[in-house]
Amino acid sequence: MIIDCHGHYTTAPKQHEGWRAQQVAAFDGKSAVPPRPAISDDEIRDSIVGAQLKLQKERGTDVTIFSPRAAGMSHHLGDAKISEQWARACNDLIHRVCTLFPENFVGVCMLPQSPGVSPANCTAELERCVKELGFIGCNLNPDPSGGYWKDPPMTDRFWYPIYEKMVELDVPAMVHVSMSCNPNFHTTGGHYINGDTTAFMQFITAELFKDFPTLRFIIPHGGGAVPYHWGRYRGIAQDLKKPLLKDFLLKNVYFDTCVYHQPGINLLSQVIPTDNILFASEMVGAVRGVDPETGFNYDDTKRYIDKLAIPAADKQKIFEGNAHKVFPRLAKALKK
Amino acid sequence: MIIDCHGHYTTAPKQHEGWRAQQVAAFDGKSAVPPRPAISDDEIRDSIVGAQLKLQKERGTDVTIFSPRAAGMSHHLGDAKISEQWARACNDLIHRVCTLFPENFVGVCMLPQSPGVSPANCTAELERCVKELGFIGCNLNPDPSGGYWKDPPMTDRFWYPIYEKMVELDVPAMVHVSMSCNPNFHTTGGHYINGDTTAFMQFITAELFKDFPTLRFIIPHGGGAVPYHWGRYRGIAQDLKKPLLKDFLLKNVYFDTCVYHQPGINLLSQVIPTDNILFASEMVGAVRGVDPETGFNYDDTKRYIDKLAIPAADKQKIFEGNAHKVFPRLAKALKK
Repeated sequence: MIIDCHGHYTTAPKQHEGWRAQQVAAFDGKSAVPPRPAISDDEIRDSIVGAQLKLQKERGTDVTIFSPRAAGMSHHLGDAKISEQWARACNDLIHRVCTLFPENFVGVCMLPQSPGVSPANCTAELERCVKELGFIGCNLNPDPSGGYWKDPPMTDRFWYPIYEKMVELDVPAMVHVSMSCNPNFHTTGGHYINGDTTAFMQFITAELFKDFPTLRFIIPHGGGAVPYHWGRYRGIAQDLKKPLLKDFLLKNVYFDTCVYHQPGINLLSQVIPTDNILFASEMVGAVRGVDPETGFNYDDTKRYIDKLAIPAADKQKIFEGNAHKVFPRLAKALKK
Repeated sequence: MIIDCHGHYTTAPKQHEGWRAQQVAAFDGKSAVPPRPAISDDEIRDSIVGAQLKLQKERGTDVTIFSPRAAGMSHHLGDAKISEQWARACNDLIHRVCTLFPENFVGVCMLPQSPGVSPANCTAELERCVKELGFIGCNLNPDPSGGYWKDPPMTDRFWYPIYEKMVELDVPAMVHVSMSCNPNFHTTGGHYINGDTTAFMQFITAELFKDFPTLRFIIPHGGGAVPYHWGRYRGIAQDLKKPLLKDFLLKNVYFDTCVYHQPGINLLSQVIPTDNILFASEMVGAVRGVDPETGFNYDDTKRYIDKLAIPAADKQKIFEGNAHKVFPRLAKALKK
């Protein structure tokens, strides 16, 4: 079985984002937040069948660990209450997709984060999604301000309440920023990759996993710049008198394979232990075109893994085994 | 001849940074900025002979394109006047190093940037350094706020006055951030790499090189995350209806080789055209230890280039030829 650990619902019916616009507009207090829009099962089916489901079949993958559109989380808009309403709406929609296509999608939730607000505010929604909706993880935004990086680093005690809940529920988080509202950072080309790199470097400087030995993070987009600069990060850790990175962080930190060319995937596989790599495509997502150098979609990442010169057992770990290790609730979710 | 295009004066005599502390402290207006400290030629020699010069000899490199300590630029401190005093002091010291060791060092200046202040304010110091001190380029900080990214993107007209002066003088800039004062970003492991990635992505979204066809930038640290995600950047450019990156940006944008392990350098060489790669080590710099996997210093980057399976003529371009292309004033500076 081939499990894609990183897919977003980028194709949700239009009235969902339409309601979001109304909800945000109502934040000025001059209008009321309207009730959530009606979305029929057929509309949800239509939004999936010709997109994510079609691509799964074409590319030969089986299951997508599925979460709300990452840029759409936009935690910088409104306040904690606005984020809570929006997170519930998004997560409920993911739940409907997973219910309509139980063999193809398993849910991961977004959290109702808001700049400057304690992540303790997010534990109830995480618990609801895991216990009531059968979700198996969450996306955690290290920068709810959307490109201004105003909250403390992920190693700060500010974040501990959500980590405690993650540990209690035995679910991992993908470290995933949302839309950039800083004109310096292109969302998918700048902010996303910077967020990944930033989080990993934060983990190097602290002792977070002494406090939470079972806490698990996936760093998406192939770990940002980290594998390419693996020597730099090993060296900085060494200068800081930390243990070897493989002993210090790699029991808790994993990388996905959203790297859109063969040389990048080759490097990832060469420097990061196989046990720490999870297959992912981020489709339908950041890059939608066909690579003229290969004739295939940039984000058809299965092809790159297929071409790796590694044993079949290692590929099985990347495609399936590691996902079960990082998401212990996955097996049960798939049985349903 | 082997030319290292990225070295910083990280070993300057202590009174230089001591004066900086006094200068910044005086910004409150309660004390006066003292006169610059006396630094003897012998003190400068001592600071270089056992460090950069020793490493040049040990590693078999010949010339370093040398600039003030990057983290020390700290453009976020004080105001434009403070930055101007500090830039002059730092650049004058680089000039003394280059005068004492004319065969080993050629100068590149820092600029007196300050958050929110037009880079027009930097043209006089650039002109002084090039015309009076014989410098061949500058370091340009895309984020003078030190990790809060408050100024416009590098493609904005805000920056055009310094680009006009660079074009007039025919000197390139290395895009190099300085110290991070945002606790989210470790300076050399987070902010530096993010700055590189951010700048390249900014170039993709705009048409800067239509306005400045001869403007040249070096993106240090191997281009941040860019070569590792070359497929992503090619794909995003394609989605944005831009030309192929090699045609769109690579007449103006170059990458250095400050990537501290063999797999990273292999990837860089595989995906970025040889004509766009300049040898560099960033020594004495961000990573100072010996890699236990090789037994050699992480930043001894010449070893990685030596091991590349590419023709000798390509290595010559990386080690020397491309530097002359990007820094047209280099040959004349070396003749002196």
